[in-house]
Amino acid sequence: MANSTKKKKSPSDRIKKAALDLFCQFGFESVSVRDIALKANINVSMISYYFNSNDNLYQALFKDYFKVENDFYDVDNPLEQLLNLIDFYLKTNCSNWQLFNIICQEAGKSNNSLLSTEIFCLKESYKNIFSKILNKGFSANIFTIHNSYYIFDLLIGSANQFLFEQISQYKSSGNKNELVIDYKPFFDFQKKIIENILIKNAS
Amino acid sequence: MANSTKKKKSPSDRIKKAALDLFCQFGFESVSVRDIALKANINVSMISYYFNSNDNLYQALFKDYFKVENDFYDVDNPLEQLLNLIDFYLKTNCSNWQLFNIICQEAGKSNNSLLSTEIFCLKESYKNIFSKILNKGFSANIFTIHNSYYIFDLLIGSANQFLFEQISQYKSSGNKNELVIDYKPFFDFQKKIIENILIKNAS
Repeated sequence: MANSTKKKKSPSDRIKKAALDLFCQFGFESVSVRDIALKANINVSMISYYFNSNDNLYQALFKDYFKVENDFYDVDNPLEQLLNLIDFYLKTNCSNWQLFNIICQEAGKSNNSLLSTEIFCLKESYKNIFSKILNKGFSANIFTIHNSYYIFDLLIGSANQFLFEQISQYKSSGNKNELVIDYKPFFDFQKKIIENILIKNAS
Repeated sequence: MANSTKKKKSPSDRIKKAALDLFCQFGFESVSVRDIALKANINVSMISYYFNSNDNLYQALFKDYFKVENDFYDVDNPLEQLLNLIDFYLKTNCSNWQLFNIICQEAGKSNNSLLSTEIFCLKESYKNIFSKILNKGFSANIFTIHNSYYIFDLLIGSANQFLFEQISQYKSSGNKNELVIDYKPFFDFQKKIIENILIKNAS
């Protein structure tokens, strides 16, 4: 019973799932509405019925992904804030790995695609929060002074590379189960790195 | 005189330049031979004349990029080897930033594009060299023991993020001069990170 309920997806969910799979596999610009309809096994007119326009379909897919919650400041210690931010980044991208994969492909293009502005704003949000937390740590004399742009490159860049490797391995393995990424060991590694390079008087 | 010589590019160079620009801007799969001919201001048949097939054109663009020189072992000290490898990686990608940009876009796809096998092999080459150098350092009791996959993610991931940021800034600035990336300060940052986390008895 539970199983059959799980399998019965609404047409709009089937459209979203098909779009995600195809964008992730072939890239955002190479997939047509017809491809999506074919993969979702529905009539192409259903896509307009449910989503009105392509823009609405894209927004339905990405709307939650582009929100960066701002509750990192709830705790007072800048080290805890930084770890919360990294944890949030890893968790968000693990649970939305197909969106992460699409973003990676799109980020390098400069053709003003539908996504490019949103990708730019997302990166700026993270950079701003990063920079605020780092500056707070410097002012409080907890962090050693480093170039905050490079610290961003180091922590976000390595997180991206980690996620990317997990996704590549999953894709090339041909495994049909849902991808579940255990990011905990990598998070612990990043924590050690942060303590080694940012914390003052680290032994 | 020097200027006019500089401007007179052979048709085959013009084709390669146009292809690079377009692939970099719109992605590898979205660009047709017609687009390339239009941008290079030549007849479309010239592309077959000079390159015979699309495959040959792609190979002409990428043939040097996919070579990883193996002279990192020329020096004996694993720390020097590691720094040479990072320096080589940054230098190669700075001087071929458009190819780097195309690779980033293509790497996430799983559609067995012309490039996907070569991208996979390139990454594996770097991983192997990395792993050999790290193991040598561990055996010689110079490096502290860490997960070598994560060290790869940390150093290559942050280098990618750094390069990516430089390219994005250049693209959005609308600057028409050739992009010259000064990676030296970032290399020094990575050197400090390596010394802090990998070298035994680092103060």
